[in-house]
Parts: sequence; structure tokens; C-alpha cells
Amino acid sequence: MTATKSANGRRRRLRELGVHIGRYPPGRYNAITDVPGVQVGHCTLISGEGPLRAGVGPVRTGVTAILPNRGQVFDQRVVGSGFILNGAGEVSGLTQVMEWGLIETPIVLTNTLSVGTCSEAVVDWMLRAHPGIGVDHDVVIPVVGECDDSWLNDAAGRHVRLEHVHHAIANARGGHVEMGSVGGGTGMVCCDLKGGIGSSSRRLPVEEGGFTLGVLVMSNFGVLEDLRIDGAAVGRELAARAEFQEKDRRVDNYGSIIAVIATNAPLLAHHLQRLCKRVALGIGRAGSWAAHGSGEIVVGFSTANKVPRESREMTYKMKILLDQRMNPLYRAAVEATEEAIMDSLCMSSGMMGHSGHFAPGLPMEGFAELMEAARRR
Amino acid sequence: MTATKSANGRRRRLRELGVHIGRYPPGRYNAITDVPGVQVGHCTLISGEGPLRAGVGPVRTGVTAILPNRGQVFDQRVVGSGFILNGAGEVSGLTQVMEWGLIETPIVLTNTLSVGTCSEAVVDWMLRAHPGIGVDHDVVIPVVGECDDSWLNDAAGRHVRLEHVHHAIANARGGHVEMGSVGGGTGMVCCDLKGGIGSSSRRLPVEEGGFTLGVLVMSNFGVLEDLRIDGAAVGRELAARAEFQEKDRRVDNYGSIIAVIATNAPLLAHHLQRLCKRVALGIGRAGSWAAHGSGEIVVGFSTANKVPRESREMTYKMKILLDQRMNPLYRAAVEATEEAIMDSLCMSSGMMGHSGHFAPGLPMEGFAELMEAARRR
Amino acid sequence: MTATKSANGRRRRLRELGVHIGRYPPGRYNAITDVPGVQVGHCTLISGEGPLRAGVGPVRTGVTAILPNRGQVFDQRVVGSGFILNGAGEVSGLTQVMEWGLIETPIVLTNTLSVGTCSEAVVDWMLRAHPGIGVDHDVVIPVVGECDDSWLNDAAGRHVRLEHVHHAIANARGGHVEMGSVGGGTGMVCCDLKGGIGSSSRRLPVEEGGFTLGVLVMSNFGVLEDLRIDGAAVGRELAARAEFQEKDRRVDNYGSIIAVIATNAPLLAHHLQRLCKRVALGIGRAGSWAAHGSGEIVVGFSTANKVPRESREMTYKMKILLDQRMNPLYRAAVEATEEAIMDSLCMSSGMMGHSGHFAPGLPMEGFAELMEAARRR
Amino acid sequence: MTATKSANGRRRRLRELGVHIGRYPPGRYNAITDVPGVQVGHCTLISGEGPLRAGVGPVRTGVTAILPNRGQVFDQRVVGSGFILNGAGEVSGLTQVMEWGLIETPIVLTNTLSVGTCSEAVVDWMLRAHPGIGVDHDVVIPVVGECDDSWLNDAAGRHVRLEHVHHAIANARGGHVEMGSVGGGTGMVCCDLKGGIGSSSRRLPVEEGGFTLGVLVMSNFGVLEDLRIDGAAVGRELAARAEFQEKDRRVDNYGSIIAVIATNAPLLAHHLQRLCKRVALGIGRAGSWAAHGSGEIVVGFSTANKVPRESREMTYKMKILLDQRMNPLYRAAVEATEEAIMDSLCMSSGMMGHSGHFAPGLPMEGFAELMEAARRR
Repeated sequence: MTATKSANGRRRRLRELGVHIGRYPPGRYNAITDVPGVQVGHCTLISGEGPLRAGVGPVRTGVTAILPNRGQVFDQRVVGSGFILNGAGEVSGLTQVMEWGLIETPIVLTNTLSVGTCSEAVVDWMLRAHPGIGVDHDVVIPVVGECDDSWLNDAAGRHVRLEHVHHAIANARGGHVEMGSVGGGTGMVCCDLKGGIGSSSRRLPVEEGGFTLGVLVMSNFGVLEDLRIDGAAVGRELAARAEFQEKDRRVDNYGSIIAVIATNAPLLAHHLQRLCKRVALGIGRAGSWAAHGSGEIVVGFSTANKVPRESREMTYKMKILLDQRMNPLYRAAVEATEEAIMDSLCMSSGMMGHSGHFAPGLPMEGFAELMEAARRR
Repeated sequence: MTATKSANGRRRRLRELGVHIGRYPPGRYNAITDVPGVQVGHCTLISGEGPLRAGVGPVRTGVTAILPNRGQVFDQRVVGSGFILNGAGEVSGLTQVMEWGLIETPIVLTNTLSVGTCSEAVVDWMLRAHPGIGVDHDVVIPVVGECDDSWLNDAAGRHVRLEHVHHAIANARGGHVEMGSVGGGTGMVCCDLKGGIGSSSRRLPVEEGGFTLGVLVMSNFGVLEDLRIDGAAVGRELAARAEFQEKDRRVDNYGSIIAVIATNAPLLAHHLQRLCKRVALGIGRAGSWAAHGSGEIVVGFSTANKVPRESREMTYKMKILLDQRMNPLYRAAVEATEEAIMDSLCMSSGMMGHSGHFAPGLPMEGFAELMEAARRR
Repeated sequence: MTATKSANGRRRRLRELGVHIGRYPPGRYNAITDVPGVQVGHCTLISGEGPLRAGVGPVRTGVTAILPNRGQVFDQRVVGSGFILNGAGEVSGLTQVMEWGLIETPIVLTNTLSVGTCSEAVVDWMLRAHPGIGVDHDVVIPVVGECDDSWLNDAAGRHVRLEHVHHAIANARGGHVEMGSVGGGTGMVCCDLKGGIGSSSRRLPVEEGGFTLGVLVMSNFGVLEDLRIDGAAVGRELAARAEFQEKDRRVDNYGSIIAVIATNAPLLAHHLQRLCKRVALGIGRAGSWAAHGSGEIVVGFSTANKVPRESREMTYKMKILLDQRMNPLYRAAVEATEEAIMDSLCMSSGMMGHSGHFAPGLPMEGFAELMEAARRR
Repeated sequence: MTATKSANGRRRRLRELGVHIGRYPPGRYNAITDVPGVQVGHCTLISGEGPLRAGVGPVRTGVTAILPNRGQVFDQRVVGSGFILNGAGEVSGLTQVMEWGLIETPIVLTNTLSVGTCSEAVVDWMLRAHPGIGVDHDVVIPVVGECDDSWLNDAAGRHVRLEHVHHAIANARGGHVEMGSVGGGTGMVCCDLKGGIGSSSRRLPVEEGGFTLGVLVMSNFGVLEDLRIDGAAVGRELAARAEFQEKDRRVDNYGSIIAVIATNAPLLAHHLQRLCKRVALGIGRAGSWAAHGSGEIVVGFSTANKVPRESREMTYKMKILLDQRMNPLYRAAVEATEEAIMDSLCMSSGMMGHSGHFAPGLPMEGFAELMEAARRR
């Protein structure tokens, strides 16, 4: 098996479909990469068909890497924090992020049973890039988030390998972000539809600071009937349709979502923790009520200040956003989160996983009519 | 000035207006009092007109008391917890609630500058009811939540007195809950409309445990354009109307919300903390993005188990909901919260406060057309 | 009854007794006031003798106020945070302190049942000083911490009045801090000995930044046998002595402790939260195991940066301590906390409260021999 | 390299040396295994000498596994929680433990850079034991704690393999616990002395419930001069001795500590979180001030109730300790933690690691004189 590009078919992003969430305009790519210096890379693993054979396949999984500071995050640490809406999941390394208010490794997203492998792989990658780690420097604790893709993917087979993680990191780029069934999102299911990676951004007007904020999600939560698009009860509308009443729908497996929020606004760690809480509100607007087994965890960072790892000084200076000026960022965080989730659906074609498990794509045909019908429900 | 009943005019609850939020049916009263043993009492203070004269008026404030266990909460403590979505506010006593996982006093809601008075008044009330407090028993720490009503009310005048708190507690009843501009909600403004007290409940079907869950809110958050009713952008629709573009709208003062959730499902403290997080998602669906200065705090309790204050035993037995069975409660919490907020708006007539500050009521006339127009936005 | 100065007799501080805790030297006053701009004021209420008559006495209570920035804390907010070791107590206002990472009111310490009164009194004081509060400005939420002094004091009588709080604030000064049975500490009992207010400070050497750090405690926790002085089992030694085996010892009432830590090191809010955790370790060294009913809460602030309330700017600049440089502050926090608790004991003479309840003072006579004997235990 | 038993020489536990910490007696083995059903297994990796060659050695590391319920923890989940004194470290899986209040996997301790491998290995082990995981059941998130052993060990070489983790789990036993430089503790350094694994227990008297409580630590924190044994300044005494003033002492690398506390007292999740905070106080008494880079994390569980994974019921019954009865457990937790740390030192001989790095053992010869001298300091 090799790392494969996913075939997402002819999908369109929510904005292309005519739905604009919220007040603020997106950045150029409408993605987390609109925040200067933020890069995203995927490694997508798709192979095999038919019944589940543990260790063999079918494989529907992968790795997504988000790099602050063009990957120079060990030497140029960024201010970071997080928020756990529902801790029935894992972002390993988050404890240190929240203690120190710093991020010093790439952020990697994958499936639940591959967290260990990914953590080890990031360590390996960082040791190569920074041979002093564990000798002259402290050791590092990678940030690795997960959702459970076992409904489509041979999760127990743990097909993610060290080289896949390295591939995702090495291929991280600014600019356009591939979305849908790619990277860590390859095998994810969101509101009983095919979910995965989505991203969106917002630019504040100059008089509100002119900052950019971007969100990337790996969406894997929820049940169909709860899905809302810009408030419209699309899930209820779809659930009433015959083609969405298949027996093979995932039952009582409410998944998870990991969201990463980045901004170039000069925020402190406790500001970022607050911002991450607003991401949770955006998740809620998409239709999540954070089911018992659904890990809904948010990681955030600000690229505005580089926090020195080595310094002979006692202190350093930071530019900091006045706390009274936070509100536009909060609003933008809710908007971008909601849209990122929607784009994770919009950009994912239906996918057949193991054992005949099929996650249908959000219908693109007749989308305007779907929205119209949903708004009347 | 005496405690006055508010005149809320001819208002109708959201369900009477034809909007049904969510899947589950409400309880008999569609209020927190549907949870057996929960009682609610108000003391409403309305007097004076014209410009603000600190210490004189106009007065638009009051006290709302929520009593678990028909007020027998000192001897029959309930399991409790809370969640702070945004800590720019205060629920005094919440620290102990969350440490012990217990509630042993009434829960009182009022305006920000009257928290001290209310706390003292609850102590006074409890000392009368339980003369051993501070002698044979430990002292108590009352649970008092606040929002800032200073846009309509002479908050600095601190018109809430000890007797008003006692009145609210003594008059607490089960059954019908008065909503709108009453009690602690008298002077509150929500999404630039007149807010205040709202409540709603949900009953789970027998196969999901048959439990009842109720939410009561004191709503004081948000800006008009963000208001959503069952997903429809009602705020955006209203904001486009001439009559809602007055100069006197509150600016950059995003208020707060305190929510109380009660259930007879047998939950533990950490279960309740999780449930309170779902209340936060319901607040988000109503249009909140938890503005910087908006304290959004949730308190929760379960009436299913009475936790003994005095016992010769070493242990006691509790019936506990299996954690796998939580999901219906989470869904119901989101639904009831959203509807409680809506009912706080639906049941509040427009109110003139000090200095010509006017908070208009959510229009009742043409409500169906309003919803129809909002759904198209 | 009027505000009375306490008579603490001929007491000596721990250093005068020859015991030096830790490595770092104290500041000039060995008190929290060594941090420039920090002021402390007390109002001490002592009156009556004999049996408890609720509302009459005996009275053994009071108020202590700690003011950052010479009281100019509303306009020149300081960075603040806190830590709850054991939440069986209350520091009202702490929720907002931890949310915003700011302190903007005086910090007041009193008895449990007077928190409401003190909160209201601080509001009153601030409204006089800043008439715009609640009109042009947001309202404020005072920071008021408590311990339960009901074993000596007629707590249920709530003898603290508004004017006592104003007195404590108005009389706050830098320099020498009165300790022992004064202010909020008047009726407190610590490790079955007379406790109350204690304070201590540390100065770091220039090569570690030259910062000053000070701690003030209101001590009311613990049982005699657990008391440790610089590691020596003084409590065990005392407990074996006949005069400390009285029947009137407080039973199963393990009190609380509130600690306030101040520094001029340029710390951020999350740094301060970490620093407050080290204060908890210092409390542990004194002999606390944070009993079930013992509220052990820490509030911290840094005076190095003033956080502007009003500004036309979008951002501001802060000087910040490099996180790698924190260790000396952590060590100093543990040292100063331990010594502050010891000084609360050292400076408190024995006190007779209501109903023959007597809290003996830590013996000053033969102290060297006591330490010698304790070290051998 | 094979898994090797460590040679700890002739070491004695603290009690054998005549020092008894605290009031309560230990259980039969004075170890966490005194809690019925708790098992401990190690895999110790020691090989090579001389300079550090990454990937080759020298190797001084390993794995320690703690199993609740004789390893039947997936089907018979235990109530669990944790506390993060200092989050500069990692216990992966702790987020879910704290969210659900449950532990359902073994708890594994290792070096920082092997967390990923251990997490993957536990998943592998559980998939073999429970083939339904990831298919019929949810996936699992293992609990893996770490300290940094890179001063003695070729940490970057990541010598821990899947089979070592399996070995530690498969060989877990009740009864006697091997301590010192074994398992995950093999390469750890505590207060500049050789640290590692230590364990201790306490039995409460029948009138306080008769419960047993045990602590196991992997100690890797602190600097010599701060070490306290039962309050005595042993570190200061040792630091003054010539043989402890070597140049090769670890500098500015303050390590970490992971502690696991188990009890058969019927505690709820929030009770356990509180209990874990008392473990932190015990760590403080040993001399820790929780240095900036020192991850000090506590995990706790109660074996008294088995929480069913599968059930047709809606609810279940639990026996719960009355919260008023907690105090003896809190005191016992502090005692057992302090003694467990001391035993990690007492049972570790000096060890030469890579590059001539040497961690001396706590001297056994002349220990009584050492204590005597330390008590006078």
C-alpha cells in the first residue's frame, strides 16, 4: 500500500454552493493556511475492499499535519492552548500545551489507535531535525489528536506507519488545503455522512485589528437528523429521504471532532483557551451535542509572537491584544468552525469502507433545493 | 417601593407560537418545575421612571430563587456541579458546589451588584431555618448567580434587600413558572431585546429512562443580529427593520446568562458537569458567542439521590445512570436550554428603563411571518 | 462595638526565634508589602465574653484588605490568577479573575458568613471612587475570601459591617504588616493553635531577576499533631504535652486557609496560576493535607504590568518573564508561604472565644527547646 | 538486548531504616498491591556502557505496568480520575479518564520518548485480549505516563519495544513489588540521587472504614538540597558532603514524577480527583516545588465498584463513601506518597549511565547518623 490521493469526485465548498456563514469574509484560501506561516500536509491511505480482515484492510485512514511557523516551531515556539468540550478522546501532548501555554511541535491528526505511532513518528522527525533533543535540550511531547474511523477503516490493523507521518509533515504547504476524505479525515463519518478534513478562515476588518483566523477540523461526530447548515435543519430533511434510511447506518457511535484554530492576532495562552471555547460553540451550531463517547477537543495557537526557547535574557516583550478587543475574534471563531465542518462534508464524496459500511456524501445535486426544504422544517 | 408583579402584557410562549425545538416533548409545565421537587420563586422590583438617580431609581431588578427538594436542601443535599463557559461573571458558592459535587442551599439569581446582599440574605434565611449552622454544623456558602442589568436598572443603587430574597424563597412553588421580566430577570436584556427569566423542560421516553430535565435561564447576553430561533436568523431579519435601528440600543455591552439545569435522572457530579457543558451548546445555538464581558455560567443538580449530611454510617448507596445512557439527556439539555432562552424573550414585553433606555420585546404580532422571513435569510 | 486593635502580647516572628525557612532572604518587612505598591489594611473586631449569643457576641472577627497598585487597581489592573487546592470554601470573584487573568478590585479576607457584606461593601467603596461603574463602565465583581471563625466568633451574628470593610481599605498601608489575631484573621484557629494573618516575602538575587515575592495568609486549617515548622514535628511534640490535651479543642473542624501571593516579576495569568500551585505545596509543608471541609484557595497577582482598562489602541506591550526563568519564583513561593503560615501562629497570642472555647498561642517560651525536641520526633 | 533484572545491591526500605512516616500502618507489602486486585509488573532494560550513541545505548530504561482488577479492567472498569500538579509532562489517556471518571486499560509508566510505543503496545495487548475492540466495542485509549530519563539513558534511541510492554503487563503480580531502578524507573534520577519506582500503602483502622490505600511513584524530580525525609533536611546535609559535589550532577533538569494511587474505599470520580491532589501535597513534602519543566501528574482509581461496560439496565447501584469520612484517606495519601518517594530512593543503588553520568544512591551506610545530622540542619 502506498500513500494515495483520495478521489473526492466533483465536490464544491459551501460558499460555492451559495451559503455564506456569518458576517466576516474568509481569507484568500478560506482555510487555516490563510494565517501566515501555517502549513497543512496530508498522507491518505486508501486500499482494499470487502470484509474486515484485521491487519489487512480495507484501509481508509491517514495523517494530517498542521505546522505553525512553516515548521520552525521547535525553535520559534508559538503561544498555544486548548479546550476540552468532551474528553472522550485524546490529544496527546495537550497537557503540556495547556501548562506552558506553548506549542513546540507539529500538530498531527489521525485515527485513535494510531496515536502512539504518530507520537513516536513526530519524535523521530524532531530528533532528526534537532539532534540536541534529549541531550542538550529537553525532550519533546508531540501534539497528536484522534478520532475513531473504525466504522470504515481497519483501525485495529493500525496501518499508519512512521513514514506516513513523515510524509504528511514533509509535504505540508501553505495555500490551498485539500479537504474531505484526506489525511486523518480519510475514514471519518460526520452526522452519518462522509466527513473528514474541513477548513475555513475569517479576516477581520482593519478597524477590528485586521487579523486572520483559521480553523481546521477532522469531523467524525453526530447523527444525521441533528445536522444543521447555517441553522437550516438539513439533517432532518435528509433523514426523511428514502436513500438515507439504509440499515447500514452507524448506530450509537457518535464519533468525535478535533479542531485546530490558528490566528495571527497577538493572543496570550488564556486568551486562546477562551477562543477555543468559542470553537466549541461553533461545533454545537453544526448539530453536535457532544455525545457521551464523542471526544470534542480544540487546540489553538497564535503565530503573532515567537517565544524564545534559548535566551540569555530574563524577560522578553510581547505585543498583546487588549482583552476588550477580543469579541470580533470570538465571533469569527464560531463562524469559521461552523463553515470548516460544513466544508468537511461538502468536500467528501460517499465512501465504501469495510464490510459494506457506506458513508454517503452530502448531496451536491439539488443542494439549493435541499437548503430550501431544510429551512422550512 | 414594594415587590411588584411585572406586567408582561399579552405574551405567548414559543410553543404557543408554533415553534417546537428539538425532538423530545416538554413536561407538563414546560419548566424546570417539571422535575419533581423543584420550586421557583420571584421577587420583582419595578418602580420609577426617567433619568438615572443612583440610589433612587428607576428600579428594574429583582430576585429569583430555585429550590431543589422543596426547599429541604440543607438536610437533603442534592448532587450538583456546574460549568463556566465564560467566567466574566459570578456564581458565588460555585467553587464549593464543584468541589463537593453537592448543593445544599437555594440557588438565587439577581443583578451583579446585589450578589453580596443576596448571599447574606440566604445565610440569614438558612440560619433561621437551621439554627445549628455555624454552631453545630458547618457554615454554608450560598449559590448566587448574577447578570448585569445596569442598562435599564439603577444597579448602583442596589435596591435588592434582604426581605426581597426572603420573599422569593418563601414564595417558591412547583408548577407554573412566571417568565419574562420577573425576579432576577426583571431588568435583563438579551440580544438587544427584553430578556429575563425563561424555562423549559423535556421528558425522555420510558425506553430512554423516562427522566425529566428542566432548564431555567436568566438571559442577558448577545446582540440582535445574532439571535437564532430554531436555527432561523430572526435577529438578522429584525435588525433590518427600521424600528430596531434605534440609537438607544445598548452598545458593546454583551451581558451574560446564568442557566440552571435540574433533572431527576440519577447523575453523579461529574455527569452533571458534562450535562452543564451541553447547556452551553444550547446557549450557543440561541446566538451567543460568549462575548468577552459576558459571564455564561451553568449550575446543575440531580434530585434523584439525597446525600445525607449526618450519618453514623461509613458509606451509602446511590442509584446511578449508566454512563452509556447519557446521550438522551445531553440532547434534551440542548433542546431545553434553547427553548428556555426563547421563552425568556417570548414572555418579556418591551421595557423602558432609566434615561430613556428601552429594550423592545420580541414581536408577537406577525411572528409566523417573522419566522418565515428569517428562515429565508 | 468599635473597630479594636488586637492585643497580641509579646510575640516574635519565626526569624526572631532563630528559624530561617529556605534559601532566599526576605524583603525589608518580610511581608507581602515588600512587593512595591502592595498595601495591607485591617479592621479588627473584638468584643464580649462568655457564652454565645447570636447577634450579640462574643465577637472575634474582622476584615483584611490587600490592595495592589496602592489601591489604583480599577484603573491600573494587574495580571492575576488563582488556584483552588480545595474548594470547600469561597473566594467570590475568583471566577472572573481566572477568566480574564486580571484583578481590578481590592482583595478582602473575612469570615465565611460575612462574604456577602464584604462584597457589597467593596462595591460601595468602588462606586464612590469610580462613579462611572455600572453606568459608563462595566460593573465590578469584588474578590472576597473567607475562612470560618465560628469556633471563637459569633459568626452567625455577622458583626462585620460595611464601615469595617471601608476602614480596612482606607487604612491599608505599605511597610510593616500587623500579623496574628488581626483583621480577617482575628478569630481564626490553625492546627488547634491561635492562627490568623501571617505574611512573608522573598527577594531573588539579581542573577535570578532580582524580583520580590510576598505571601499573606489567613490561616485556619489543620490539627495540632500535623503542624510542622521547617520540617520539625512541632505539632506532635506539643500534642504530647499535658496543656495541649484540653477537652475544649476544636474537633473535626479543619478550617481553611486563604493565601494571597504578589510579585513584581512580570508574569502572565497562566504563570500566576502555576505560581499559586506552589503556594499550595507550601501549605502542605506546614502540615495541611487539605481536609474535606477545609477551603484552601490561593489568589495571585503580578504588579509588573498595568493592563489598561481604556485604550484607543488595539494592542499593548508587556514585558514577560521567560518561562525558563520561573524556578526561583516557585522555590521562593513555597518558602514564603511556609513562613507566612508560621508567622500567623507566631504572632497570635492565645485567645478565648465564646463558650469557653480557647485557642492557645504557639508557645514562645522555650521555643528553641520545642524545636529541638520536635526535630527528634 | 533482553529484559534484565536490575541489580539494586543491598538496599533497605525506609521502614527498615527505622523511619516511619505518618500515623497509619502500612499494609502487608507496604505497596500499592496491598489494595486487593492491584498488580504491578516491570520490564527493565539495562545494557551498554560508555558514551552516548543514539540508537545503540547505553540503555537504562524500561516499563512498569499497574493493573487494577487483576488485569480485568476492560470488562470491569474502575472509577478513576487524576490531578495535574504540573503539566510539563504527559499521561496520555488522562483526558478520557477524567472525562468519564473511569479507567479501562492498564496504566503504564515509561520514558518520555517511548510513550507512543507504549500506547501502541497496550492497544495491541488489548486487541488480543478483546478482539471486539474497534469492531463491536469502542476503541480504547491507554493510560501511559512518562518521565525523562535522558540523563542516564539513550532516550533518543527509543529502546522500549512492544514486547517489553507486553512483558511488563504479562508479568504483573500482586504481593511484593520490586522497587528502585526497575521498569519505567530504571533510568530515573530524583533529587540528584538515583530514583525510580517506589511504593507504599496505608491501612485505615476499622472505625475509619478499614480501607487500604496504596501509592506507586516513578520519581525523577528535584534537586539534592531540597530533599526532605520525614521533614529532615537530608538533602542539605548531603549537599554539604564532598562526595555529592561532583561536577557531573545534572543541572537545571528537574525531571518529573508520575504517581498512581489506588484504594478499595468506595470513591467517586470527583472524590478521586480530590485524593490525587493530596498526593501532590505528599510530593511537596518530599522536597518538590514542581519545577517549570517537571511534569508532576497523579492518576487514581478505586477498586470498590466495578462499572459495567455492557448492561441492559438503565442504572446501577454503587456503594459510596460519605464525603464526611474522607479525611483519613487524605491523610493516608500524603503519608503513603511521601514514603513511596523515599522508598524509590532507598531501593535504588547508584547507577552509571551514558557519558559518565552517574546518579549516586541515597547512602545506606550511616543512615541513622545522616538523619540525625539532617534533623539538626
